[in-house]
Amino acid sequence: MTITHADTAARTPVPTQSTYQSRVADYWNAEENPVNLELGKIDDLYHHHYGIGDADWSVLDEPDPDRRRERVAGELHRLEHAQAELLASHLGDLTPSDRVFDAGCGRGGGSVVANLRYGCHADGATISAKQAEFANEQARKRGIDDKVRYHHGNMLDTGFTSGAYAASWNNESTMYVELDLLFAEHARLLRRGGRYVTITGCYNDAYGRASREVSLINAHYICDIHPRSAYFNAMARNRLVPVHVEDLTETALPYWELRRKADHLVTGIEDTFLNAYRNGSFQYLLIAADRV
Amino acid sequence: MTITHADTAARTPVPTQSTYQSRVADYWNAEENPVNLELGKIDDLYHHHYGIGDADWSVLDEPDPDRRRERVAGELHRLEHAQAELLASHLGDLTPSDRVFDAGCGRGGGSVVANLRYGCHADGATISAKQAEFANEQARKRGIDDKVRYHHGNMLDTGFTSGAYAASWNNESTMYVELDLLFAEHARLLRRGGRYVTITGCYNDAYGRASREVSLINAHYICDIHPRSAYFNAMARNRLVPVHVEDLTETALPYWELRRKADHLVTGIEDTFLNAYRNGSFQYLLIAADRV
Amino acid sequence: MTITHADTAARTPVPTQSTYQSRVADYWNAEENPVNLELGKIDDLYHHHYGIGDADWSVLDEPDPDRRRERVAGELHRLEHAQAELLASHLGDLTPSDRVFDAGCGRGGGSVVANLRYGCHADGATISAKQAEFANEQARKRGIDDKVRYHHGNMLDTGFTSGAYAASWNNESTMYVELDLLFAEHARLLRRGGRYVTITGCYNDAYGRASREVSLINAHYICDIHPRSAYFNAMARNRLVPVHVEDLTETALPYWELRRKADHLVTGIEDTFLNAYRNGSFQYLLIAADRV
Amino acid sequence: MTITHADTAARTPVPTQSTYQSRVADYWNAEENPVNLELGKIDDLYHHHYGIGDADWSVLDEPDPDRRRERVAGELHRLEHAQAELLASHLGDLTPSDRVFDAGCGRGGGSVVANLRYGCHADGATISAKQAEFANEQARKRGIDDKVRYHHGNMLDTGFTSGAYAASWNNESTMYVELDLLFAEHARLLRRGGRYVTITGCYNDAYGRASREVSLINAHYICDIHPRSAYFNAMARNRLVPVHVEDLTETALPYWELRRKADHLVTGIEDTFLNAYRNGSFQYLLIAADRV
Amino acid sequence: MTITHADTAARTPVPTQSTYQSRVADYWNAEENPVNLELGKIDDLYHHHYGIGDADWSVLDEPDPDRRRERVAGELHRLEHAQAELLASHLGDLTPSDRVFDAGCGRGGGSVVANLRYGCHADGATISAKQAEFANEQARKRGIDDKVRYHHGNMLDTGFTSGAYAASWNNESTMYVELDLLFAEHARLLRRGGRYVTITGCYNDAYGRASREVSLINAHYICDIHPRSAYFNAMARNRLVPVHVEDLTETALPYWELRRKADHLVTGIEDTFLNAYRNGSFQYLLIAADRV
Amino acid sequence: MTITHADTAARTPVPTQSTYQSRVADYWNAEENPVNLELGKIDDLYHHHYGIGDADWSVLDEPDPDRRRERVAGELHRLEHAQAELLASHLGDLTPSDRVFDAGCGRGGGSVVANLRYGCHADGATISAKQAEFANEQARKRGIDDKVRYHHGNMLDTGFTSGAYAASWNNESTMYVELDLLFAEHARLLRRGGRYVTITGCYNDAYGRASREVSLINAHYICDIHPRSAYFNAMARNRLVPVHVEDLTETALPYWELRRKADHLVTGIEDTFLNAYRNGSFQYLLIAADRV
Repeated sequence: MTITHADTAARTPVPTQSTYQSRVADYWNAEENPVNLELGKIDDLYHHHYGIGDADWSVLDEPDPDRRRERVAGELHRLEHAQAELLASHLGDLTPSDRVFDAGCGRGGGSVVANLRYGCHADGATISAKQAEFANEQARKRGIDDKVRYHHGNMLDTGFTSGAYAASWNNESTMYVELDLLFAEHARLLRRGGRYVTITGCYNDAYGRASREVSLINAHYICDIHPRSAYFNAMARNRLVPVHVEDLTETALPYWELRRKADHLVTGIEDTFLNAYRNGSFQYLLIAADRV
Repeated sequence: MTITHADTAARTPVPTQSTYQSRVADYWNAEENPVNLELGKIDDLYHHHYGIGDADWSVLDEPDPDRRRERVAGELHRLEHAQAELLASHLGDLTPSDRVFDAGCGRGGGSVVANLRYGCHADGATISAKQAEFANEQARKRGIDDKVRYHHGNMLDTGFTSGAYAASWNNESTMYVELDLLFAEHARLLRRGGRYVTITGCYNDAYGRASREVSLINAHYICDIHPRSAYFNAMARNRLVPVHVEDLTETALPYWELRRKADHLVTGIEDTFLNAYRNGSFQYLLIAADRV
Repeated sequence: MTITHADTAARTPVPTQSTYQSRVADYWNAEENPVNLELGKIDDLYHHHYGIGDADWSVLDEPDPDRRRERVAGELHRLEHAQAELLASHLGDLTPSDRVFDAGCGRGGGSVVANLRYGCHADGATISAKQAEFANEQARKRGIDDKVRYHHGNMLDTGFTSGAYAASWNNESTMYVELDLLFAEHARLLRRGGRYVTITGCYNDAYGRASREVSLINAHYICDIHPRSAYFNAMARNRLVPVHVEDLTETALPYWELRRKADHLVTGIEDTFLNAYRNGSFQYLLIAADRV
Repeated sequence: MTITHADTAARTPVPTQSTYQSRVADYWNAEENPVNLELGKIDDLYHHHYGIGDADWSVLDEPDPDRRRERVAGELHRLEHAQAELLASHLGDLTPSDRVFDAGCGRGGGSVVANLRYGCHADGATISAKQAEFANEQARKRGIDDKVRYHHGNMLDTGFTSGAYAASWNNESTMYVELDLLFAEHARLLRRGGRYVTITGCYNDAYGRASREVSLINAHYICDIHPRSAYFNAMARNRLVPVHVEDLTETALPYWELRRKADHLVTGIEDTFLNAYRNGSFQYLLIAADRV
Repeated sequence: MTITHADTAARTPVPTQSTYQSRVADYWNAEENPVNLELGKIDDLYHHHYGIGDADWSVLDEPDPDRRRERVAGELHRLEHAQAELLASHLGDLTPSDRVFDAGCGRGGGSVVANLRYGCHADGATISAKQAEFANEQARKRGIDDKVRYHHGNMLDTGFTSGAYAASWNNESTMYVELDLLFAEHARLLRRGGRYVTITGCYNDAYGRASREVSLINAHYICDIHPRSAYFNAMARNRLVPVHVEDLTETALPYWELRRKADHLVTGIEDTFLNAYRNGSFQYLLIAADRV
Repeated sequence: MTITHADTAARTPVPTQSTYQSRVADYWNAEENPVNLELGKIDDLYHHHYGIGDADWSVLDEPDPDRRRERVAGELHRLEHAQAELLASHLGDLTPSDRVFDAGCGRGGGSVVANLRYGCHADGATISAKQAEFANEQARKRGIDDKVRYHHGNMLDTGFTSGAYAASWNNESTMYVELDLLFAEHARLLRRGGRYVTITGCYNDAYGRASREVSLINAHYICDIHPRSAYFNAMARNRLVPVHVEDLTETALPYWELRRKADHLVTGIEDTFLNAYRNGSFQYLLIAADRV
């Protein structure tokens, strides 16, 4: 029998490929942290990242406990939203006919922000079936489900159409994956001249290897934080050329200072983040790059 | 006329692509060495590799010439089978629904061993149409042709389905091909976490370049033995990560010592193998690696 | 919603992908230099490259101005044709059933030369719709449009069938593109053992970086001349192995000396070429390589 | 002033180069875990690694508490020593005139084992001044300080003589450094044909990224455990060719099972190790490689 | 005769290594553009780069011609100085005992700026003997020649001491050299954790290949402007990790708008710069990176 | 004890580093083939390579047996010398003050040819002490031992001064070594713009892997013939840029045809060479490249 050539393009969806990925999917399917859910309820923008910018510390002085919790949550949400807007502002000049890819979309806030800002189409991908379902429900409620869709699947292997995207991003989701696989997928999906943006915590290889604090954060989220160099090395191998790099570490501190004082929202990792940022072993970075 | 995009996926089978490959195919189409055919007849397991383990030297003391030939052949076959079993034992925990790829399958013994052991599906590939036909006939006789199939074609470019295989191997067939092309194909075919195993002769680059003995073996088989380093370098470039490496050189000697005394089976290359192993220029190696 | 796998193979034609490419296409759509059109009219072989070999200087002594212009044009065309023939002579032993790829075909002369010489099929690709149309019209007039076709599109991404070509070339068109993308496409299209040939101006990295003259040539043609090393580095990464390399610089000088004296044909860049060749910063090179 | 060429070879010793390294040095300068000190006292062989092999569980049945602690310590020490001997047995055929390099030597046990076994010279390097001093004191007591020396310094940049070493190793000390820098230094120090051996915990990239357990171990020791693939990739880039790879995970479990029951010796990380080994995310590996 | 090992470290200074470098050196030895000399005279800070920031356009309204020339020159110098200060502000926390390397120092302004700001030692390197002499004379006049020295030599091969520098930079001088050679030298000279900064014009590979305008700038300065990607690729290969990347294109426009109106200072390249910036083919970039 | 930094530059000469190299040295120390010695005696130019160009076949018709042997030897020597001259003609414009490196110099003929042609200094390196001694004796006899010296040592690690050589070459000696190590040493020794030339047999990877004939040649000479691609790949990694590549296969045939008929000179490998050249598996190649 001669070798018969099966259709190698016909792929079955592979939402998870490794034990590790299953464990991460389980985590996010089970996750119901108030800091994500309570904040999202405020305006139905559910973010899964941290926040940036100066905080209004007066919210801590609010005497009424309920009202204080509410105001603190609102302030944290405002800072998270500021981060989402900062990221969106680097996506380039998008039009309503453009399409964007939200890699590691979580409960979907980032794609909504992009759609509101540019009117563009958005495809989000999350490894958690529950998050995808939740996010699609939100899109339906907002009446944007014709343009914004969330997919349960592996952001490293989406099966989406090559070259069909004008912009794409990861907002704090790169620490779960191999960067070479991730950037290869972004480079495949983006059209020539398309824009990629990431905001991410990375460990600082000018400091050295991963510090104890960085490892504790890894243990907390079952993630694997990359050194800063890994981003630029993997981009260099995948035709993603930086055009704007910004160290957000200083501007990330108020969010964590405020959150550590929000008893109803703390997850226990707050001090570790603050220590990691302050001892120089950890950085909060925005990278915008062009697909060439 | 605008460039029209033909379907680049539609490939015609390419059993041989170079003059060299045709010459190798001719060799194996014509090959009828007793050491392969006579030994295979014993239990219808036709191997195209050598053997490992201690030999029962008493077979040489058998006074009856016919019986001695028979016992020597049986002992050599036992050692060859031990090698096939050793390889199969490193394929991981396979189930009957799993699929394995036997690259350079020759007359098909290895796939039968795997099927008997795990009940799994097997696809073999050989550049010799005659070997493929012979092997498929054997599978039919055993009644396993629904699960075990041999294909006439190029193991570097099988056209089989990506990610469909739980394990794959080369049992002494890597010296005919470029390792980067070979391992790229294995990496494409194996699922994430799949296992690759090879048993191979390699020249020892701690000794230096290929010795005269290694070149004589190359001339004998029209092959091109790689240095040991080439295996690890090419695996590193193709996401195959070693988990077990074993130097089988010592355990390979008895087979050759016995075979050189088997007048009806010798091919003339026996002493060269023994010299090559003993002067340190040649090694017999097993590598088991995971597809990551 | 689970990630649905769109057919990533279905690609829409992308004649130009960047602003730069559009600008190059505009240039060639608008270009009507007499040195290209007048010379082509002589025998309907329209070349877009320079010429090689000794010139018959007596054409300059022709007293009749019209006749002199005619004879000078004829001599320049002869030298250009000699270059096309030199390139074609390195394409290997082609048969009428073979197929060749003319990358950056311009107004089509090179494919006609190859077809006349070997009777082979030819596919040309040019970024200029006007050039493609013009060249196809020429093929129809010659009655070879069943075998020779010109396509409007990007030579970096033709969509032609993998492994279907016995030979391919660039005759002075490599300076508009990234060599790694170009050679990857040639390597994809050529069958194993196929032949690639380029004639190109390159800057000489034994001299150093690009000289002023090289930059002036770049400005003139909106091109980006590569260093000599870039060709060999990119070939090494794309399985193209040189078998013949020839420095044509000396033999390219007569063409330019003659052309600078042809008032009706000069474009103004002639002296710059001569200076660049003579100060050692620029070279005219033929490279023939095998696809392995 | 013309550039004057200072002697770039004259280097001042750089025991630590980064904040991270200082923090690791501080840790080991302060470290006085009974599991290291108490076990070392038994026979003045101070190891800083774990153990392998079957345990004599009867030590737990010892009724006398003091005696039980003593017997448990003795048994753990025996297993650690077995590991040191296993590593030493892979160093090749060393003679008393040969020189070996003990990278990350800790309190020095490994070099003593090698010296006792082969009579060879040994140079150890540790980032902890206190460990180097302690180890040298031990060598003096044993009367082998003419052949065995410990150096306070950076194992990535020892300044030792190129090509002067017949063998070298890391026994559980590779997780503190970049492997490319480490293996470059080993490759520089080893003579052609020299042997390198490491025993190390690595995370299993067939499982995926670092698991939570792996991150907890990192946090415990301020280290940064590499994936298995990183070892083979970095060796491939540094002319170190594996010849023996052995998965010691199974044989490492008894040590940890016994240690978790040794109240006076536990450090709190025991269960994490056992979980990491058992869920498949972590492996204990021996790699022996030749410098080619 | 046995091979005798000459001292390979003993190198004679090699201020220029190629014809190209000699031609660049000749250019700068001869260069006496008023835009460099007249502006430098204002405060004895001689810069060889452009300027950034908003301009005070009222200087153009100055009725007195001499005074207007003076004020325009002053304004241009202020913008150039602003650029030098911006660069210096990214050099990290330097102390008076630190040492910095000014690669391609020209007439020396950048090193003076750094010395004034941090009190640090500075070594400049320029390929022009005349520039080095001029700059050293300036340092003597300022009384800082004990700390600030300019060397005539090749910035790719300085012979300075490895690891001796806390910071280094190129202010518009990278377009004359191969980036891999340049960054290898910076990486060699910088201590671990040291900072590298460059401000440079680069062509934008999101636009495509070098535009006509970029080639005209190359011809003007005999330089060879790199694509943006080349910086990040070469940094990735040389352990330089970006921490801040800023697109200065917009902020560079006022300098050129003002300069094109300064009749006594124009060099003729002004409009080309403005066109290149505005059509998107050229960018003015600051990159700050850490040596890891 | 702190790490003390021994002088890593002080190297003891290492004529041979591996068993393989010792075996090659033994071969050449013992070699006394008439085809090398008898031919050399003719004019005291001892070559260790083959010849090129058309043969004067009339020498075979010489009736007197002694005279015929003499004339055949003379003709073979003429062809060998033609090869040496061809190589020397590609070394660039050398002056008497220039220095050249003859890598794998054998009994020294090539360096003499270069010295006679250019008056330049020459350093030869051979792994055979006997060859070096013989060649130096020849130089003394010719009175050129002040300019031409032969060294016993490893051409991969000569210890000669970096950048001191204007040209270098291998005339049929590359098949004994790793090309990356070899070209790294040439690149180190050559000055920028220096020229490297090799004439070598290589196997043709357009044909496929090494043919049986190539392996027989390897066995004959204990060498390890590289594929053609290996030369260009290794040059690309070592800053050697081809400028002239010529396939000498056709022109190499007469030498072998004549030699196979010279009974007193044949070594037995003649027919294998002819078969290898003619079946397309083997090529005789000249590569001239610039050090950039």
